[in-house]
Amino acid sequence: MLISNESPRTVEVCFSPALYPEILTKQDFIVVLVDILRATTSVCAAFENGVQSIIPVATLEEAKNLKSQGFLVASEQDGKKLDFADFGNSAFQFTPESIGGKTLVYCTTNGTRALAMAQHAGTIAIGAFTNISALTGWLNRQEQNVVILCSGWKNKFCLEDALFAGALTEKLLKTPLFQSHCDSAMAAMDLWKLAQADILSYIEKAAHRHRLGKLGLDDVIPYSFTPDSTHVVPVFDGKIIVDAGLGMQPGG
Amino acid sequence: MLISNESPRTVEVCFSPALYPEILTKQDFIVVLVDILRATTSVCAAFENGVQSIIPVATLEEAKNLKSQGFLVASEQDGKKLDFADFGNSAFQFTPESIGGKTLVYCTTNGTRALAMAQHAGTIAIGAFTNISALTGWLNRQEQNVVILCSGWKNKFCLEDALFAGALTEKLLKTPLFQSHCDSAMAAMDLWKLAQADILSYIEKAAHRHRLGKLGLDDVIPYSFTPDSTHVVPVFDGKIIVDAGLGMQPGG
Repeated sequence: MLISNESPRTVEVCFSPALYPEILTKQDFIVVLVDILRATTSVCAAFENGVQSIIPVATLEEAKNLKSQGFLVASEQDGKKLDFADFGNSAFQFTPESIGGKTLVYCTTNGTRALAMAQHAGTIAIGAFTNISALTGWLNRQEQNVVILCSGWKNKFCLEDALFAGALTEKLLKTPLFQSHCDSAMAAMDLWKLAQADILSYIEKAAHRHRLGKLGLDDVIPYSFTPDSTHVVPVFDGKIIVDAGLGMQPGG
Repeated sequence: MLISNESPRTVEVCFSPALYPEILTKQDFIVVLVDILRATTSVCAAFENGVQSIIPVATLEEAKNLKSQGFLVASEQDGKKLDFADFGNSAFQFTPESIGGKTLVYCTTNGTRALAMAQHAGTIAIGAFTNISALTGWLNRQEQNVVILCSGWKNKFCLEDALFAGALTEKLLKTPLFQSHCDSAMAAMDLWKLAQADILSYIEKAAHRHRLGKLGLDDVIPYSFTPDSTHVVPVFDGKIIVDAGLGMQPGG
């Protein structure tokens, strides 16, 4: 059901997939899936570098099966690339040479679990700081309510996803198209206000930033918090993820 | 298991009962149950005004059964006192005349559900702004890790409970007894830093504050955010809640 232009659409934030069953919005809505470190940032990077489509899968069995059928596979568990896979979960692996024009199978600890949970929603868009302005413009044009679903870390609240939720909520509420009566959205915006002047210092508090550091996987952090390096808007239709953005080049 | 004095104890925050299964602490811990608007504030008020003990029950059937046995009963649903009950969920109803020296049966929408969920924890303490300093002192003396469990509103994140979690975490971390590596605790402390200078203005953002306003039940709000009007520390042993505080008078 499309929302009338006269009544503002709602923005709601879920800090964890465990809170997703409690969302207030009863009308149709678009889910924005967020896993800043690192799945949704990496998916945006893959589209920026020319991947044609991404097939998200929830289990290692599915990933291995599709690998045996000749697909390129990205798969990690607890931050580490799995042996059978072509890629882990780092945005930097998805070069134009390795994935341009291809279909990629994707299986991650947090991201695909949240994607499976939100599958009943009509549309799921992939959100990251790297595509936040393109995503905002696309959401403005959809005439639907928005639920920002943070993947968290193993279902726990995650600072980096909450900060993105705050940044995106702030952008959406800047137009009269949207309103919010959601405590999580209010809290996320306040955390973003505190963090935005020096987000890399702020994110030093985050537990997951330190988990990645211990694994030597924190090289993507400055990139992951730099806004608008891409105009892609990856969207999941229930089967595959494709780019619903305008196909403009960064800075274009 | 008691924690060694040499290794700092941990503080963790759960923003909703739905996140409780995800807590990191594996060792024994004390749960601090929080439902600022209004259950835990009201329980503290009842002890301050002389209630001898409180029996929390999870279902209306249990509450009605104990009422028929002659117990005083407090019971509300979605903020409203139920017809069969003696009290609703407002701190102001629990006067010394009405509850002094008596046992009270308590059944609320959010609070008792969270209490039931945390029952496997060794000890559950009841936290509110009204007893925050007494509670901090008591927690400092227990030699156990602490999990602050926000009741939320129907399992959703609630600003008022998050603010209390931040205020309590800040107090606990002021001593070398405690440390925290929990993103929720970091976020809660930052929200508290933003709110504390003028908490009644800040809490205007909170959705539940407006729910209570619509029901005409927001008279308790200034009281609910005023710290240290009591020294009681209500503690649940799995069956009843009694005061584990020092029995000091406010200001004493």
